[in-house]
Amino acid sequence: MSTLPEDHPAHRLAGSAYLRACRRVPGSVVPVWFQRQAGRSLPEYRRLRGDGSILEAIAQPDLAAELTLQPVRRYGVDAAILFSDIMVPAHATGLGVDIVPHVLETVRLVVKELDIPLIGFAGAPFTVASYLVEGGPSRDHGRTKALMLAEPDVWHCLCGRLAGWAVEFLRAQVAAGASSIQLFDSWVGALTPQQYATYVQPHTTTVFEGVADLGVPRAHFGVTTGELLPLFAEAGATVVGIDWRVPLDRARRRLPGMVAVQGNLDPAVCLAPWPAVEQESRRVLAANDGRPGHIFNLGHGVLPQTDPEILERIVELVHSEGRIEGPTTP
Amino acid sequence: MSTLPEDHPAHRLAGSAYLRACRRVPGSVVPVWFQRQAGRSLPEYRRLRGDGSILEAIAQPDLAAELTLQPVRRYGVDAAILFSDIMVPAHATGLGVDIVPHVLETVRLVVKELDIPLIGFAGAPFTVASYLVEGGPSRDHGRTKALMLAEPDVWHCLCGRLAGWAVEFLRAQVAAGASSIQLFDSWVGALTPQQYATYVQPHTTTVFEGVADLGVPRAHFGVTTGELLPLFAEAGATVVGIDWRVPLDRARRRLPGMVAVQGNLDPAVCLAPWPAVEQESRRVLAANDGRPGHIFNLGHGVLPQTDPEILERIVELVHSEGRIEGPTTP
Repeated sequence: MSTLPEDHPAHRLAGSAYLRACRRVPGSVVPVWFQRQAGRSLPEYRRLRGDGSILEAIAQPDLAAELTLQPVRRYGVDAAILFSDIMVPAHATGLGVDIVPHVLETVRLVVKELDIPLIGFAGAPFTVASYLVEGGPSRDHGRTKALMLAEPDVWHCLCGRLAGWAVEFLRAQVAAGASSIQLFDSWVGALTPQQYATYVQPHTTTVFEGVADLGVPRAHFGVTTGELLPLFAEAGATVVGIDWRVPLDRARRRLPGMVAVQGNLDPAVCLAPWPAVEQESRRVLAANDGRPGHIFNLGHGVLPQTDPEILERIVELVHSEGRIEGPTTP
Repeated sequence: MSTLPEDHPAHRLAGSAYLRACRRVPGSVVPVWFQRQAGRSLPEYRRLRGDGSILEAIAQPDLAAELTLQPVRRYGVDAAILFSDIMVPAHATGLGVDIVPHVLETVRLVVKELDIPLIGFAGAPFTVASYLVEGGPSRDHGRTKALMLAEPDVWHCLCGRLAGWAVEFLRAQVAAGASSIQLFDSWVGALTPQQYATYVQPHTTTVFEGVADLGVPRAHFGVTTGELLPLFAEAGATVVGIDWRVPLDRARRRLPGMVAVQGNLDPAVCLAPWPAVEQESRRVLAANDGRPGHIFNLGHGVLPQTDPEILERIVELVHSEGRIEGPTTP
């Protein structure tokens, strides 16, 4: 059920813990990776990145590949995610730079080095639209929501365009060797379920439909999205990121049985000493209770002040204690 | 069921739309007020406040009373809330200023002028503790959570102290003439339900138990609290503020039948033109569907850039269209 060529890494890595968990195959360790694992919490990252802009770093495939691989080596995580940023394609376009060829070259370099899956990713229409409309991150997304409600035609035209870009960008990353994709709609939890269904869900659906034939797992992520979870599944996500606010057992009751869950340790917990982190990590595992289709992750990105040793210990703990036991059917 | 003296305004105003809704009495209009209704969105507020600090304004009971009354005159809302800030008592203490006498004088001045209830309020232990620990507002509450998890004894000692202050401050406001209270735990939605139950709920319970004998409605508010709603009711809240992320009918299913709901229009919606605001306001009314115990409000504070005319029209709409019809029992 995949249009990918036979020599694509997704086939070779089909037995990896990450891809098995995405597909809800039972009988495996719980895989783990961390959102923003390639980032400022790593000393080797800070040394290599220096003070250059993210765009400069992404325009150097050797550098971007190395930044992508650093957390894989240090933590022993079960998936790599491209070092990039959801706003990069839009930024670059605004500057008249086409960074897509650089990104694809990075994907190729990374995939050659990896024996775990690489996750390709893109920003989702709402979050990218909010960034463009507000001119940066926003507390209340006031202009964005006002535009959405007052000018629905303009809104749908903008989001349709952004959805098209996301499809192209995700397909290109998979073609270059990514084995799964994640669509980041980090801020969409600022909407009511009704607003989401009317103004955003059609575009999320476009993105997921646009990559469905590739047969790779389709993960979706945002924060404060507890009320939107069933709509994410309806839109075509096969893996849903769960904010730490919603315990995994509760999240599963809002999702169809064939969807895998990803999460959901509070990143702020990782600033506490290990015994507290261990206790909270065990709670996450206990809430999933061995059900197939759990990828351990944080509920949001790694905070820059996180001690990397804490993340190392989480990986060890999850690999030694996390078990996926149940049958594949719910 | 109230230890208040017979001449307390709470008795005189027992038939007001706001107090009736708090007690889930059927057959009335839906009352409406706006969080942060006394604030920068009002031109008369900006003229009167000028550039002084909030502490300077609160230390002048005549000024603070006038700022409290401005939105009542302009909007015709069904409740007044003291012009103040949840951090004021802690700030003032840090500066060696006891502002409590000023606040109580403001309450007396306001109550003399009002024929609607005045809501007294205080900051809840978690939110005030986070402000103190982080030194201001925080995106992730990282230090606060690390302290909470790593040093539970210190945490409980701090929150116990803050709960005691809240009880004293709320009781004093009611004694001076406030007819109900609201405990603001604006940031507590950053916690998991388990963290809330362990580290915060006991202190919230202390606050609500500490004012229970007064017999006034006990409202509780925070954002991104959808998963915590049943715990708020357990802690003793009789009115629960609902974030716009959770439709009111869904919120009610998470709450015991005897609890009233307050909310829940998204404040960012008020930046859109009237037809969009009207549609979204009607949605809020429709989600409550005439059930007793609904106080119309925003899901968070009025944004400073809001056009006051929009809020005026919301009050008109809610008063003309909102109906509480059902029986008092669920």
